[in-house]
Amino acid sequence: MPMPDAQIHPTATGKAIKIVEAHHDPQDFVFYSGWFCPFVQRVWAALEEKGIPYQYKEENPYHKDEEFLRVSPRGLVPAATYYGKPLNESQVILEFLEDAYPDKGPKLRPEDPYLRARMRLTIDHISKNIIPAFFRLLQAQEDDKRDEARNDLVNALDKFGKEVKGPYWAGEDITFADLVLAPFSLREYILKEHRGLDDSLLSSEYKAWRDNIFKRPSLVNTMSEAKYYEEIYDRYLRNEAQSEVAKGTRAGKMNE
Amino acid sequence: MPMPDAQIHPTATGKAIKIVEAHHDPQDFVFYSGWFCPFVQRVWAALEEKGIPYQYKEENPYHKDEEFLRVSPRGLVPAATYYGKPLNESQVILEFLEDAYPDKGPKLRPEDPYLRARMRLTIDHISKNIIPAFFRLLQAQEDDKRDEARNDLVNALDKFGKEVKGPYWAGEDITFADLVLAPFSLREYILKEHRGLDDSLLSSEYKAWRDNIFKRPSLVNTMSEAKYYEEIYDRYLRNEAQSEVAKGTRAGKMNE
Repeated sequence: MPMPDAQIHPTATGKAIKIVEAHHDPQDFVFYSGWFCPFVQRVWAALEEKGIPYQYKEENPYHKDEEFLRVSPRGLVPAATYYGKPLNESQVILEFLEDAYPDKGPKLRPEDPYLRARMRLTIDHISKNIIPAFFRLLQAQEDDKRDEARNDLVNALDKFGKEVKGPYWAGEDITFADLVLAPFSLREYILKEHRGLDDSLLSSEYKAWRDNIFKRPSLVNTMSEAKYYEEIYDRYLRNEAQSEVAKGTRAGKMNE
Repeated sequence: MPMPDAQIHPTATGKAIKIVEAHHDPQDFVFYSGWFCPFVQRVWAALEEKGIPYQYKEENPYHKDEEFLRVSPRGLVPAATYYGKPLNESQVILEFLEDAYPDKGPKLRPEDPYLRARMRLTIDHISKNIIPAFFRLLQAQEDDKRDEARNDLVNALDKFGKEVKGPYWAGEDITFADLVLAPFSLREYILKEHRGLDDSLLSSEYKAWRDNIFKRPSLVNTMSEAKYYEEIYDRYLRNEAQSEVAKGTRAGKMNE
């Protein structure tokens, strides 16, 4: 019997269809995606921002085909090949895109070394504080655990909001700091509907940033229809999802 | 009453004294160090490899002075200032040194974008698999937990060893992949003495790499006398250490 997660809708829908259809042809850079995955969307939006030629391949990480397992032995998305050579981990792929395509499209890392380091520290904060709290709130079954996770998430988003120069994290130019967090903000409505993450709890700085992100074509156009995310997040809300991040959250292994 | 960890020997000893004494003068880059800390040693060795001018400041992270808390609000080492502006997190500082001093000394990141991404994936493996297993083994009090952690550590080091081109991870040139792991290998003798991490368990590839690391001046010369590390690691061996990493390990929050 397949895992419940294997029943994921097989293809992107909504606005994302157009982008998927425009990326069928073979390219040097092959992008192994899962349309629903926020970690995938970081890379997908970066590819769109920079206009890098890429071939899109949809994978169900719970139902792995052989080609995909050769690229990503643990079957995780996002993954990629560059001239046939494999890569994975969203943050590693993001840095790679800037290193490998320095003259293609806008730069998603600040040129100034100190600002670039500050950006990496912000990404560290997103990875160690915001995202673990996001998943803990999503998966929490008891009221006290929900309250604790919601509070942690609000505080971590507040800290992020304080750093935003506006309209984006670094100012006028979108950077990795935005793209690493944005996919989670785009999925925040699930926490609003089911976990009491009311907008009144969130800082005006964070909300102003989020408003700008919600208008950015590279992010808007890589989203599928809401109802298909809901199917996936229902499993998280019941704490039955089988992804690495869901299992890690359940085991208490995500950093605070 | 001070925490037991606050009793740390106040200064570097042994070979490290010479390097500390050569870095008293003010510089644009100020390095806030703890002589004992493996995360600090990553950055310290990189500064030495590249010959970057830096001012060394010894901090006891359990007994924080005001200047240090302005630089590193959570009181963590390594930290730094660059023209007075603060930085922290060892991996962020390493990337910063290459970004800010591109023409100073040897390059510690491969020039080829794909190899550089592979290096970052290896560092991800060190961070997510090797180091958590290292601390779990160090702090484990029961035999079955020790066996499990030792097994995880051996397997994770084995995976690293398989990637080594020799003499260093990337070949002839030392890179961040070496410097991120080496400080832990230099402290492995504590696990050998107290936790049964016998050399017979470790792969010949890993041991060959380790032999080369143990001869590298930037690493050898940033080590203090063994007896002072033993004082510190005694607290870990009793699972009484109060560092962030020790507390994280105790709470089961370090990734697998």
